[in-house]
Amino acid sequence: MSVLIVGSTALDSIKTPYKENPRLLGGSASHAAVAASFFAPVMLVGIVGDDFPKRYLRLYRRHGIDLKGLQVARGKTFHWAGEYELNMNNRRTLATELGVFETFTPNLPETYRQAPFVLLANIAPALQHHVLDQVRRPRFVIADTMDLWLNIALDDLLKLLRRIDALVLNDSEARQLTKEDNTITAAKKIHRLGPKYVIVKKGEHGALLSAPGGMFISSAYPLNRVVDPTGAGDSFVGGLIGYLAASKGSLEANLKQGMIYGSVVASFCCEGFGLTRTTRVTRDAIEERVSQLGRMVRY
Amino acid sequence: MSVLIVGSTALDSIKTPYKENPRLLGGSASHAAVAASFFAPVMLVGIVGDDFPKRYLRLYRRHGIDLKGLQVARGKTFHWAGEYELNMNNRRTLATELGVFETFTPNLPETYRQAPFVLLANIAPALQHHVLDQVRRPRFVIADTMDLWLNIALDDLLKLLRRIDALVLNDSEARQLTKEDNTITAAKKIHRLGPKYVIVKKGEHGALLSAPGGMFISSAYPLNRVVDPTGAGDSFVGGLIGYLAASKGSLEANLKQGMIYGSVVASFCCEGFGLTRTTRVTRDAIEERVSQLGRMVRY
Repeated sequence: MSVLIVGSTALDSIKTPYKENPRLLGGSASHAAVAASFFAPVMLVGIVGDDFPKRYLRLYRRHGIDLKGLQVARGKTFHWAGEYELNMNNRRTLATELGVFETFTPNLPETYRQAPFVLLANIAPALQHHVLDQVRRPRFVIADTMDLWLNIALDDLLKLLRRIDALVLNDSEARQLTKEDNTITAAKKIHRLGPKYVIVKKGEHGALLSAPGGMFISSAYPLNRVVDPTGAGDSFVGGLIGYLAASKGSLEANLKQGMIYGSVVASFCCEGFGLTRTTRVTRDAIEERVSQLGRMVRY
Repeated sequence: MSVLIVGSTALDSIKTPYKENPRLLGGSASHAAVAASFFAPVMLVGIVGDDFPKRYLRLYRRHGIDLKGLQVARGKTFHWAGEYELNMNNRRTLATELGVFETFTPNLPETYRQAPFVLLANIAPALQHHVLDQVRRPRFVIADTMDLWLNIALDDLLKLLRRIDALVLNDSEARQLTKEDNTITAAKKIHRLGPKYVIVKKGEHGALLSAPGGMFISSAYPLNRVVDPTGAGDSFVGGLIGYLAASKGSLEANLKQGMIYGSVVASFCCEGFGLTRTTRVTRDAIEERVSQLGRMVRY
C-alpha cells in the first residue's frame, strides 16, 4: 500500500572540517520519501522554489516518488546551512532561509486523499494538521517532530498528538515534552497525550517503542564511520512507515521489524553527505544489513 | 566453577537531593562479588580497616563469598563520598580517603590460586598485575578499569592488556584509550592492544561485545526510576563472570548471555542505594527480568 509523506523539501549546505557540500537535496520529507521508497509507493507533499535543481526532481522520480503533491512556486527553495565539528556530534546552524516555505499551504491532489499510511515528517505542526484535515480515514498516521516545535508551537503539537497513532521523537525531546528526566517514564507519559505508539529515537544507541503489547528495544546498525548524520532520523521513520505499508499481519510486530529496517536505512544515510549514499543503496543491501543486525542482537 | 575477584572494598557515602546514606558497603569488588554470587562461588581479594562494620562481613558471607583473601588491617577502610544531582546523571566526588588501601598488597591464599575464572575489577592496574602474578593458568581473565588509570597508570594498564582475555570499559574510556571518536572503531582498535574480547559499557544504552565471531549488542534492562547508579558497571561485570563460570559450552555464546545477566543484575543495583537492592534479589527475580528483556529485544 502507498505512503503519503509531508515534510520539508530543502537544499542543505553541509560543512565539515574536511568538505563543503553546497545545496544538497535535503529536508525531512526528502529523506523520509527516499527511505520509504525502498518498500512502498510514495506520494510526496512539499514545496520547492523555481531554483530547485531539475536533477533532484529526477532523483525523486528514479525512486518512483509521486510528485503531484510537490508544489513548485516562484521564489527560493528552503535552504539550511550547517556545520559539523570533527566528532560529528555537535552541529551548528549557519543559516535558515525559509524561502517559499513561508507561504506554504499543502493542498492534496485527489489521489493522495485515500492514502492508507500517512507520515507527517518533521515540519510545523500547523502544516501537519492541514494535511491530516485533507486525508480520508487513513489506516495509520505517524508524526515526527523536533525541539523547535516544542518551543514555539506546543499547543498545535499537543492537538496533533490526539489525532495520530504514533509519535516519533528524540530522547531529549521526549524528556522536554513530559518534563520527565527518565526516558522510559517519559515515553509512557506521552501515551496519555494521545498516541497509542511512542517511538523514542536515541541516535547511535537505537530506539525504543512503547506499545500496548509492551516495550521494544531496537539497536542501531553499528557504523565504523559517520560522514554526515543529517537526515538519519527522517530516514529511520521513512523506512519504518515504508516497511509498514508493505507488510501484512500484526501491526505491532510489523512496527518492530519496521524499526529495524528504518535503523538500517538510517545507517546508510549517515555514510554519505545528504542523500548521496542512500540513493545508491539497493533493497538487497538493506536486507543484508538487516540480517547482520539480527545476528548482532541474537543470543 | 569458582570466580576470583579482586578490586576495591569500600565504604561509600552517597548523597542525593533527597537522602544522605553514610558508609554504605561499596567498592568495585563488593558490587562485583555480590553480583557474581548469584551464579557461582566467589573468592574475594581486598582489604578493609578495623572500622569495617561486622554486618558487612556477614553480608558477604550470606552470599557465600569466601573471605580468606580479605585482609583486615589496622586503620581506616577506603572511603568514598559523592553527591548526585537531581537527574542522577552527574555525580561529584566529595571525598576520597584511601585508608588501608594505601599500603595494600594482595596476597592470595593457596586455595585461590587455582581459580579458573578471574575478575580484575576496577582498581589500580599494578594491583591487578599483582593478583595475576599469583594465579596459576586461569581459564578466563577479565579486567575492568576506569579513566583514572588511563590518566595516571597508562603504562601499567597497557601491560595488563597483554595478559588478559577480556577488557571491560566505558565508551568514553574506550575513546580515550584509543584516541578514536567512533566507539565501534575504538572497540576494534583495543584488540590490537591485547584482549581477544572487548566489552564497551554504555550505561542505560547497554553494552557492545567485539569478539572473534563478530559484534554483539546487548540492551540494558529499561528502568523507570534510577535511585543510585553507583556500582552498576561493577555489578554488570560481576554478573557476567559469575554466569560464565557457571556455564558450559561455547565461551562466546556464554559471554553474550552473560552480558544479559550482567545487565539485569546492574538494573537491580540501580534501584537502591549501594548494595541495598541487589542483596535482596533472588535468582528467580533475575531470571524473570532476563526473560522480560529477551521479549523486549525479540522481533
